[in-house]
Amino acid sequence: MISDFQKILSTNVKGMKRSAIRELLKLTGDPEIISFAGGLPSPDSFPIQQLKEIVNEVLDEDGASALQYGATEGDTRLRELLVENYRASGFDITIDNLMITTASQQGLDLLTKVFVNRGDKIIVGLPSYLGGLSAFNSYGADPVGVKFDDKGMRADLLEAALEEMKQKGEKPKFIYVIPDFQNPAGITMPESRRKEIIALARKYDVIIVEDSPYKELRFEGEDQKSLYALDNTGHVITLGTFSKIFVPGFRIGWVIAHPDILDKFIVAKQATDLCTSPFVQKISAKYLEKGYYAENLVKTIAMYKEKKEVMMKAFDDFMPEGVTWTRPEGGLFLFLTLPEHMDSEELFREALKEKVAFVIGHVFHCDGSGKNTMRINFSYATKDQIVEGVKRLATAIKKTM
Amino acid sequence: MISDFQKILSTNVKGMKRSAIRELLKLTGDPEIISFAGGLPSPDSFPIQQLKEIVNEVLDEDGASALQYGATEGDTRLRELLVENYRASGFDITIDNLMITTASQQGLDLLTKVFVNRGDKIIVGLPSYLGGLSAFNSYGADPVGVKFDDKGMRADLLEAALEEMKQKGEKPKFIYVIPDFQNPAGITMPESRRKEIIALARKYDVIIVEDSPYKELRFEGEDQKSLYALDNTGHVITLGTFSKIFVPGFRIGWVIAHPDILDKFIVAKQATDLCTSPFVQKISAKYLEKGYYAENLVKTIAMYKEKKEVMMKAFDDFMPEGVTWTRPEGGLFLFLTLPEHMDSEELFREALKEKVAFVIGHVFHCDGSGKNTMRINFSYATKDQIVEGVKRLATAIKKTM
Repeated sequence: MISDFQKILSTNVKGMKRSAIRELLKLTGDPEIISFAGGLPSPDSFPIQQLKEIVNEVLDEDGASALQYGATEGDTRLRELLVENYRASGFDITIDNLMITTASQQGLDLLTKVFVNRGDKIIVGLPSYLGGLSAFNSYGADPVGVKFDDKGMRADLLEAALEEMKQKGEKPKFIYVIPDFQNPAGITMPESRRKEIIALARKYDVIIVEDSPYKELRFEGEDQKSLYALDNTGHVITLGTFSKIFVPGFRIGWVIAHPDILDKFIVAKQATDLCTSPFVQKISAKYLEKGYYAENLVKTIAMYKEKKEVMMKAFDDFMPEGVTWTRPEGGLFLFLTLPEHMDSEELFREALKEKVAFVIGHVFHCDGSGKNTMRINFSYATKDQIVEGVKRLATAIKKTM
Repeated sequence: MISDFQKILSTNVKGMKRSAIRELLKLTGDPEIISFAGGLPSPDSFPIQQLKEIVNEVLDEDGASALQYGATEGDTRLRELLVENYRASGFDITIDNLMITTASQQGLDLLTKVFVNRGDKIIVGLPSYLGGLSAFNSYGADPVGVKFDDKGMRADLLEAALEEMKQKGEKPKFIYVIPDFQNPAGITMPESRRKEIIALARKYDVIIVEDSPYKELRFEGEDQKSLYALDNTGHVITLGTFSKIFVPGFRIGWVIAHPDILDKFIVAKQATDLCTSPFVQKISAKYLEKGYYAENLVKTIAMYKEKKEVMMKAFDDFMPEGVTWTRPEGGLFLFLTLPEHMDSEELFREALKEKVAFVIGHVFHCDGSGKNTMRINFSYATKDQIVEGVKRLATAIKKTM
């Protein structure tokens, strides 16, 4: 081993932290622990039999291409099918607006690589997705947090932040939002808020990054148009993924952007992993083509809706006074707020004794706030586990109070 | 679209170029062109029937885990099986020394992310693998090229470069070598040269990065011990991949390193793509477990050996005086040198008229040299195409002369 290993690390990697969620999850290896911590889809949503059929067909009909290198921008058929779906939701795009990435996390990595120099400002929600914050941090971005109300990122505070930067001659590289069933807050932006944010992006000449992994998982209420479709002038970059609506194990995501922007992502991806697995891309294309995607989505939504309702009822039944939570219309998460003086990290240790786990809220806050908050996942545990887990959590909260 | 898009790009992406190979390959879409350009394995080496069997088993036995998120460091069983193979070749390692990456290109990306700040020196061969150069360039590394002789990177010139840096108070972040059937040169380092380079790395306290995608594809001559196994003290990081010895379409590679170094790679990977597809990892593990890997490797080696011999004979038969080429003992490539005054880029245009393609040599040279060289692949074309393609290439060379 060389003598000065720690000293020769890059500035970027010196600032990186292991994912708090992944590290906490290691503590929850105990099979008796009911975990509301991860963001895992339910394995009951995985279409194993259909995949067996599809994989055999792909290998028979197209094996040589499926197992070979592929184009950096992704499998043409898969891109066409995705574009078709997005066009039906008001996206004014062609295949030149969409590239495949190795899961949405790679979209976040490429986004940062393409735009961020160390120290560059970006705007994120308070709270915001941890994987996004990690990607931004891994290139030394300087996140500016904007607080939420019950409609998501506050437009007035966003404007104040943009104006303040403008006065200093600064401009953020992008505004990062998760408009649907936000991770971790479980909040959905209504169209009015989306339009306010687009207007601000236009006024201050800033790109919006719309991260949208859960949009299709709506249980109730009205579908809200994507920021991309509301804008359609190239101000918005949209990130999508199959991880929550098909399977995470294929690691397939995509980026939708103006072709000039997308071109930079493609060049960056060439140096990063050359291409995403054509094998899993071709399987995914066939899954869409055969109509299995649409068919299974209905089942997954029904399953998650039921789980969410079981959880909501358990919260209503067991949570002590002073605890509040969001009531998401879709997605995988809700956000719980403890009384101001409480610390969810302290609660976490108590909860492990009661054999229930969650994610502490301050990791989602770039300014270190949110100590009295926590993220709760309702997609992975069974309904029985949900009821029992909420009981245990309520016990832990009462003990910590 | 925002007004100053080109201006807000990161310094890193401003310096990136589209892969010259990929761009040239687009010119070769004409199906009548015989391509010696790519680094593609032959589709005849893909074990399609065995994969059908394995995929069905994986989905039946382990579908829920295969389709779920996985550990960032990779599937435990796959890592165990790879470690077992490496231990048999003299690597003093455990599972804590090996992580899975999304193909070897991600290994190169993480390597650079972990060690390189913009402007940092690294040492590469003249010539060197283009994908490596792209990854290094994508973080602003400053490559110092060291010339080859018929044993690979020259140790005397490497020492001179290290000494010169030392005098200036500089130290390269790593020395990048491809010891077996080098891409593009087709040269293999004998053990004596490997030991000289290890001695220099120890003397100057520098990490060696050993990129080894082709080592198993030896047609003749004696296997040379890996630099990692010759060192075994943590000075060497080894990159491996299934792309040339199984299938590229799964995008599976790995990094072998001292656990303290590997830990930084794992943290960096979390922010890059969370994990590599557990689905293709579990298929790959079973492929190793069932002995199919070892069985098919023998067939692939026999096939490539024959193709290489057909190409060598065609070169001997058709190439004009003044042209020389390497005679690789394995791998996928040989390197051709034209008379000093010739430019392979000019030849490339003439070759396309004759309907044959290759990769111009100067893209492999970080100092812009190598204008009279070119890389020739012999794994992808059929034997008939190889003979015909070499004839066409010889015609183009004679015309350009």
